[in-house]
Amino acid sequence: MTDQYAQTREDNRPAGTPAVRWEEPPEGPVLVFLDQTRLPAEEVELVCTDASALVEAIRSLAVRGAPLLGIAGAYGVALAAARGFDVDEAARALANARPTAVNLSVGVRRAQSAYQAALAGTGDVRRAASAALAAARRMHQEDAQASARMAAHGLALLDELQPGGGHRILTHCNTGALMSGGEGTALAVALAAHRAGRLRRLWVDETRPLFQGARLTAYEAARTGMPYTLLTDNAAGSLFAAGEVDAVLIGADRIAADGSVANKVGSYPLAVLARYHHVPFIVVAPVTTVDPDTPDGAAIEIEQRPGYEVTEIIAPQVPVTGAGGGIPVAPLGTQAYNPAFDVTPPELVTAIVTEEGTVSPVTAGALAELCARSRRTGAE
Amino acid sequence: MTDQYAQTREDNRPAGTPAVRWEEPPEGPVLVFLDQTRLPAEEVELVCTDASALVEAIRSLAVRGAPLLGIAGAYGVALAAARGFDVDEAARALANARPTAVNLSVGVRRAQSAYQAALAGTGDVRRAASAALAAARRMHQEDAQASARMAAHGLALLDELQPGGGHRILTHCNTGALMSGGEGTALAVALAAHRAGRLRRLWVDETRPLFQGARLTAYEAARTGMPYTLLTDNAAGSLFAAGEVDAVLIGADRIAADGSVANKVGSYPLAVLARYHHVPFIVVAPVTTVDPDTPDGAAIEIEQRPGYEVTEIIAPQVPVTGAGGGIPVAPLGTQAYNPAFDVTPPELVTAIVTEEGTVSPVTAGALAELCARSRRTGAE
Repeated sequence: MTDQYAQTREDNRPAGTPAVRWEEPPEGPVLVFLDQTRLPAEEVELVCTDASALVEAIRSLAVRGAPLLGIAGAYGVALAAARGFDVDEAARALANARPTAVNLSVGVRRAQSAYQAALAGTGDVRRAASAALAAARRMHQEDAQASARMAAHGLALLDELQPGGGHRILTHCNTGALMSGGEGTALAVALAAHRAGRLRRLWVDETRPLFQGARLTAYEAARTGMPYTLLTDNAAGSLFAAGEVDAVLIGADRIAADGSVANKVGSYPLAVLARYHHVPFIVVAPVTTVDPDTPDGAAIEIEQRPGYEVTEIIAPQVPVTGAGGGIPVAPLGTQAYNPAFDVTPPELVTAIVTEEGTVSPVTAGALAELCARSRRTGAE
Repeated sequence: MTDQYAQTREDNRPAGTPAVRWEEPPEGPVLVFLDQTRLPAEEVELVCTDASALVEAIRSLAVRGAPLLGIAGAYGVALAAARGFDVDEAARALANARPTAVNLSVGVRRAQSAYQAALAGTGDVRRAASAALAAARRMHQEDAQASARMAAHGLALLDELQPGGGHRILTHCNTGALMSGGEGTALAVALAAHRAGRLRRLWVDETRPLFQGARLTAYEAARTGMPYTLLTDNAAGSLFAAGEVDAVLIGADRIAADGSVANKVGSYPLAVLARYHHVPFIVVAPVTTVDPDTPDGAAIEIEQRPGYEVTEIIAPQVPVTGAGGGIPVAPLGTQAYNPAFDVTPPELVTAIVTEEGTVSPVTAGALAELCARSRRTGAE
């Protein structure tokens, strides 16, 4: 692809540098993103010079996260307009790049409407292009402001649920500055708690298959100094069982009119675990995530991604080897919670099948009887 | 290490070849295992010539799975005895190689007791060594018989729960012939259902961090022709929500006297999901897994493994690249279920935090009101 290229930054990107920026001529007009598929091993900027390059960047998840997709979609339309491409065609391609996040099509539509309105009013394609860019910039700025307000509301809720502070928050996927015009959604709340001295621990689900938690959330947590621990998604159950989670905070890709929340796969099992353990399950998302045209969860289209993301490890191509001789996915120095086993209490076990027969329901008496029977058989 | 070496098999290992075998002189006495860390990419045999090599193989998970650990422990004691090493010292090292599986120490103790009894009775170390080996062989054979009986009991239970057959079984980790003297525990039940024409689908959890599901269960499912689909552990929730799981079948590393089941991390969240969705959660394990000396779940020691298993990808070192350009972890041709998102119903969401405020409880009315308020604010 000729219209999307990477450039490695020489300087250190300071925390808080926007995840996306618009470059004017002479270097632009282009859109510059941090390539999220290369993090945390390398901070490489991805430069998109047209909408189709942006579509590719969105599909490959170099650019990802619901709010950022909205902003990127709007800028993509502005880019097509500024470069004299067919704006409606670009808008269509961008809106369909990924199906689940409603923000993408909202952003695209907003810049496209601004373009069309200006074109209809002035007949001037340059002024229409400026209107599209202004709409994208407004959206970018609004998202940053929305982030700050979500963080404040979310922290207030946490403090209300647990007045003493010392919050232990479990999060899934990445919902921080990397996918936002500001500091993000769920992760912005955790960051606000941290800045207020009230974050005791951020539990970071690694988020298989693409490791957005291990690669991106751990990266943001490390940069901002949050106390965090990484875990495999399936180890979250042990944390709940041990009473180590005070709240689950996640983002959302689409919220149906009935309140059903589509988010990164793995969110729903956390909701069930949270309910079972009486832990609050909190969704942090801008209002644009609510889609009144989607009546309920069943109406949300779920993107099915290629099987090779599961059957193969798509690891960052890095020339270094980790302390364990493997390919690093998390920032160096990341602390991990890695129990080999977990424990299921008898009331959740339907039956125990043994060579001597089946025990159901599972009770201490029935098990003792089984063992006694087995010893008698063995002694014969 | 000089006493543990690998040899690549030239021939094709037929399905059903034991996961462990004892070789007599002139090649032995040695213990030969299939190195499970190299599967499915390569079928490499691991030859242990003394107990410390076996301890290392157990720690590195080249040899793993509760029943196989019991058999290996017994053979390890027999090996130390046959080679004239200190039997009690070898037994101690073997029993402590991994803390959670009770079978390991049971197997070690059984061979050690046989050795000690024969030594006390005859004073002849060679006869004592033979007694230890006989005990290990008996244990090996009993495990194969126990496997067959568990498979029969388990299939009977499945058919009772769902008389029509067409079982869709979700499993976690590896519980098949690779970790057994026979065909295993939970996977042996699935295989019995398959042979009886009553297995509709085997859902295979990949089992992070070490991918025993992707690497080993998928390998056994492919070899035996079971219809199987691989998924990330966190995608299981979507299958439950869609009504695609008829039963969960797992093994166990230790069952406390009260019926609490310690098994591979990720089992407990499946138990909670199964309960929430009214799906049977069935544990398949030999009676020796029940440990009367462990009163309850809290008394089970959970092995904490190194963090680098989570922060890095310990992938099989294979010189091939998969179709997606990644490092293959599952057998080639494995079908995967890979939804990018899942949906959480409103009744499981405690609150939705937005920039316009917090909605709790989450209802369609409250969300509609929020959107209307947001539109009014935007219009101001």
